[in-house]
Amino acid sequence: MGFTSDQKIRFDDVDGAGIVYYPQYFHLCHAAFEDFFDSAAPVSYPELVRDRRLGFPTVAIESTFSAPLVYGDVAVVELNVERMGKSSVVFGYEIRRKRDGLLCFSARVTTVLVSIDTMKPIALDAEYRSLFERLLGTKK
Amino acid sequence: MGFTSDQKIRFDDVDGAGIVYYPQYFHLCHAAFEDFFDSAAPVSYPELVRDRRLGFPTVAIESTFSAPLVYGDVAVVELNVERMGKSSVVFGYEIRRKRDGLLCFSARVTTVLVSIDTMKPIALDAEYRSLFERLLGTKK
Amino acid sequence: MGFTSDQKIRFDDVDGAGIVYYPQYFHLCHAAFEDFFDSAAPVSYPELVRDRRLGFPTVAIESTFSAPLVYGDVAVVELNVERMGKSSVVFGYEIRRKRDGLLCFSARVTTVLVSIDTMKPIALDAEYRSLFERLLGTKK
Amino acid sequence: MGFTSDQKIRFDDVDGAGIVYYPQYFHLCHAAFEDFFDSAAPVSYPELVRDRRLGFPTVAIESTFSAPLVYGDVAVVELNVERMGKSSVVFGYEIRRKRDGLLCFSARVTTVLVSIDTMKPIALDAEYRSLFERLLGTKK
Repeated sequence: MGFTSDQKIRFDDVDGAGIVYYPQYFHLCHAAFEDFFDSAAPVSYPELVRDRRLGFPTVAIESTFSAPLVYGDVAVVELNVERMGKSSVVFGYEIRRKRDGLLCFSARVTTVLVSIDTMKPIALDAEYRSLFERLLGTKK
Repeated sequence: MGFTSDQKIRFDDVDGAGIVYYPQYFHLCHAAFEDFFDSAAPVSYPELVRDRRLGFPTVAIESTFSAPLVYGDVAVVELNVERMGKSSVVFGYEIRRKRDGLLCFSARVTTVLVSIDTMKPIALDAEYRSLFERLLGTKK
Repeated sequence: MGFTSDQKIRFDDVDGAGIVYYPQYFHLCHAAFEDFFDSAAPVSYPELVRDRRLGFPTVAIESTFSAPLVYGDVAVVELNVERMGKSSVVFGYEIRRKRDGLLCFSARVTTVLVSIDTMKPIALDAEYRSLFERLLGTKK
Repeated sequence: MGFTSDQKIRFDDVDGAGIVYYPQYFHLCHAAFEDFFDSAAPVSYPELVRDRRLGFPTVAIESTFSAPLVYGDVAVVELNVERMGKSSVVFGYEIRRKRDGLLCFSARVTTVLVSIDTMKPIALDAEYRSLFERLLGTKK
């Protein structure tokens, strides 16, 4: 099993149809991604961006929405690493609702390590390879 | 050419790296989708949801992010229809920045017409087939 | 001391000037308000809204912003009750940044208990009076 | 009459009670503030922030919420200037719903011109005094 982070669905997360607004699922994923850095990385994601001037912008997404989340749900976001390239990392996300484990959302999110100042790709060094390797192949 | 809608990138649309937060691209797409209903549909999207109790939730996304948008940019969102099924409509979106036409984002967003009350699919009737047909095959 | 809740400042909470977008302070307050219900109320705020069809919409705000929060900060949101009327509850909020306790924001937020269906005020019953009394006069 | 800007209430602007989430009113105000710069100022607000490294952070708010807005409403945001100090500008905002002119929200928002790099106040020069004077005393 990968890294998991619980995120409460907040009062403003829903849309005019009363379910979580679909772009908000990607926000839940990013919150889990930041929490993973807080729990396991050499520096937090804010420090990576501000101090090291590095980041992992998203370059591609494939995702499936299979059940709605509503206000009051807790989203259990699971993060895995599906593949690493020279500069790229493909993350797998699954979001389940906590009350019954129902799968609501899954996504494959491709990111690239870049210099924030130039937006050019940078090769993943040993420190980041090792960080992400612990999430590689952990998907059940 | 499909339906296009200009959306200003607002003060809060950016992230800690100074570029538009990636989930926000899907929000820009939804704003254009609502604007299309306002300009061409028998009823606005708010009326569809509230009065007819119908909606087009997203069930799948494939998207590519090719260049960042920054605060002060105007996003030109183009909406096309790529395919219609019995209940499903696959929308194609492209977002270009207005100042030079650079393609920043493209997505294929699959939606299904459902009853908001049951969340079950409903067949597209002639009115909606005709609405979306005008955006079918308009992509250059 | 009142009820406190820690809220991470997320990647999308900042604006084009690199500090937390000012409307977001009120969102941090609402998150703490929901967390207070989760920790102390007979029902959660989602259940209050959905099942009992009650809510506490905001009718007035006075607030002061004294220092900026940035990406990576943790906001410590403190919630107190300043006054209770027949239907109204005046909440006091203070937001400090966790790393040094600096006061960044304070607000007095007046809410009224209403029926969600009619939006008319409803008298606070003993259960809610007792809930809020524990936060009355707790401000240091 | 001051400067007015129409803002559509979007699918994600509502909360779990089905009305516009209260922090979102301040976002509507900021959108109108940016639109005022676009229509009347020597430089847009994005250029002010990015190129001149200046900004008008909010230091205090007093506001009243008198009627809810719902999905599908158009918010007519009116902006006036109530007072100018050496570095400070007090803006008055009123939000009415377009369909019937009902006043939904009013606020007095105090801002201070600062250097983004130091966050220290800077005196308003003739250019900005002249810009804001045209909105001074325009309230009916």
